[in-house]
Amino acid sequence: MSLYAVIMAGGSGTRFWPLSRRERPKQFLAIGTRRTLIEETLSRLSPLIPKERALIVAGEGHVPVLRSLLDDPWIVTEPCARNTAPCVGLAAIHLLRSDPLAVMAVLPSDHHIEDAAAFRRLVAAAAERALAGEIVTLGIRPNRPETGYGYIHYNREDTQATSKGVEVCAVRRFVEKPPRAVAERYLSEGGYLWNSGMFFFTAARVLSDIHTFLPALGAALDRIAAVLGTSDEVRVTEAEFAALESISIDYGVMEHADRVRVIPADMGWNDVGHWAALADFGVADSLGNVGADGDEVVIVDAHENIVRSGRRLLALVGVSHLVVVDTDDALLICHRDRVQDVRRVVTRLETDGRDDLL
Amino acid sequence: MSLYAVIMAGGSGTRFWPLSRRERPKQFLAIGTRRTLIEETLSRLSPLIPKERALIVAGEGHVPVLRSLLDDPWIVTEPCARNTAPCVGLAAIHLLRSDPLAVMAVLPSDHHIEDAAAFRRLVAAAAERALAGEIVTLGIRPNRPETGYGYIHYNREDTQATSKGVEVCAVRRFVEKPPRAVAERYLSEGGYLWNSGMFFFTAARVLSDIHTFLPALGAALDRIAAVLGTSDEVRVTEAEFAALESISIDYGVMEHADRVRVIPADMGWNDVGHWAALADFGVADSLGNVGADGDEVVIVDAHENIVRSGRRLLALVGVSHLVVVDTDDALLICHRDRVQDVRRVVTRLETDGRDDLL
Repeated sequence: MSLYAVIMAGGSGTRFWPLSRRERPKQFLAIGTRRTLIEETLSRLSPLIPKERALIVAGEGHVPVLRSLLDDPWIVTEPCARNTAPCVGLAAIHLLRSDPLAVMAVLPSDHHIEDAAAFRRLVAAAAERALAGEIVTLGIRPNRPETGYGYIHYNREDTQATSKGVEVCAVRRFVEKPPRAVAERYLSEGGYLWNSGMFFFTAARVLSDIHTFLPALGAALDRIAAVLGTSDEVRVTEAEFAALESISIDYGVMEHADRVRVIPADMGWNDVGHWAALADFGVADSLGNVGADGDEVVIVDAHENIVRSGRRLLALVGVSHLVVVDTDDALLICHRDRVQDVRRVVTRLETDGRDDLL
Repeated sequence: MSLYAVIMAGGSGTRFWPLSRRERPKQFLAIGTRRTLIEETLSRLSPLIPKERALIVAGEGHVPVLRSLLDDPWIVTEPCARNTAPCVGLAAIHLLRSDPLAVMAVLPSDHHIEDAAAFRRLVAAAAERALAGEIVTLGIRPNRPETGYGYIHYNREDTQATSKGVEVCAVRRFVEKPPRAVAERYLSEGGYLWNSGMFFFTAARVLSDIHTFLPALGAALDRIAAVLGTSDEVRVTEAEFAALESISIDYGVMEHADRVRVIPADMGWNDVGHWAALADFGVADSLGNVGADGDEVVIVDAHENIVRSGRRLLALVGVSHLVVVDTDDALLICHRDRVQDVRRVVTRLETDGRDDLL
């Protein structure tokens, strides 16, 4: 079996402004970690998947930062962002050119996983089942009624064990981000997992399913595959991508496919979705203030703040539940319960034409 | 009559950190004003007292900043800070050398006064009475039970009017900063004014009173006066000041002197005592956020914050009642009700030997 990682690095998230910018979105930042999230993502795959078999799909604009962070990265560029289904299909045709038996571990580039050994054990188990023709996902056991994730309803009665003893369960259905009341019911009923966005299948299987469920994308991928390695590759890829609709692999393929399974995963997963997530895995002082290594902070009766200071000393006096992010040209002060609204700042800056701050 | 302003610029306040530093205390900053507070102080005296008759008493270390801000300032330097009585005495002997009839308007360098015309009218009235041999103060009508100021208990029955129709009242006594309950009683009883720290007397009268009530200071001033203009001036002034006790003119002289009067003053006075004072005279947006001209601030559901941004854009999301002060090397975030504790940050920095931030 040849197991490849397909690292999706096309995200251009705005929720980590002002640290994240167009040129340097979240996956290229060290957020609560020593190295950048994409470096951590590649590093935790080793030795199961060496970097030579880690294909990174990213926008053209992010190639320079990828090259600066990683040693000789293997990059396939997307001409434009069209969500995950075109991204996965593009990776599949690239892999199939050299390896008809390629197994793909499709992974986000910007998640945090505490227990890398557990993660690799689950990846190996998922790849084993993918090689046997299944589509496998990793599902995170929920610990709160989160409304920001999709859920996977699975069948605990229909569970098998891999050769390494990992339990692989049948998927009943994928559920889009639920309202609060529904999320609470999922949590109390059990049988639901968070959709981690990590998928495993052979390149051949996913391409076949794309042709079945997303025929326009399948045809476009065929036309791109026909010119890979020729002087027409860039032009054709650009033209085909421009005409594609944006659709996720979950919604476009997984929800309709058969033989889809999920592995319940306990590995300290965190999708680092917004600044408040730092409190989940950062190091807190005795008053619950979470900062980064090397930050210079003077605390006077301040508690439960999340701080990312820049080159300046930061003094907090009598304040609590703030997120403070200081950069050279912009400073964010946000209530911890309002981190989702950071994107409203970005929208305002876009409206104001402040490209220098985006 | 020759009326002189004596501007006390020796303060080294820490409550406006991180904007104020040892080299540039509050009086040399523009706080809620277009120009620095000391420039505003000199400017509002004109044309009643031209700058040629405005004597500034400051520490040696602040002479450069004074020269950079003001056009050819008249400066007398204090060798060390010994509170206001030695400062006033030193100014008096300097004035008496050239003008035996000098009337002194002793004024802080770092207050804000909204109505400069009203202020000059009161200064002129106070000077008229000072020339007649009285000690006159300006007293501010209190509008809250402030515990941070001294009070003046005055006799409304014993009121006279000056030639310009300004009411001048007899002082019953000076009161030190009262506890909250006492301040509330003063406010409800009436008959109390805030001590503004603005005093008027002839140089001859105050020197005479200093000799009476503070004989050690009087003798020291005599020894300095004997060498003014000689090569011994600096050495003698330094030696005498080093040996003096720190004492305020209020406590050391005014409380004991006779013929002390107070003019109730309505002129939009603000002592700019801490960051929260900006809310009293700054310009607020519709959500009560107070900022400075030229600040770049993006507000998303944030209200009643006091902001002093630096070169960075500042984004506030869902926060309220904060004081945010951004400088090149330090950033303060403080609850509005805790501005008195900013000095605790300064103390911490002193303990840590962070002279670069002091």
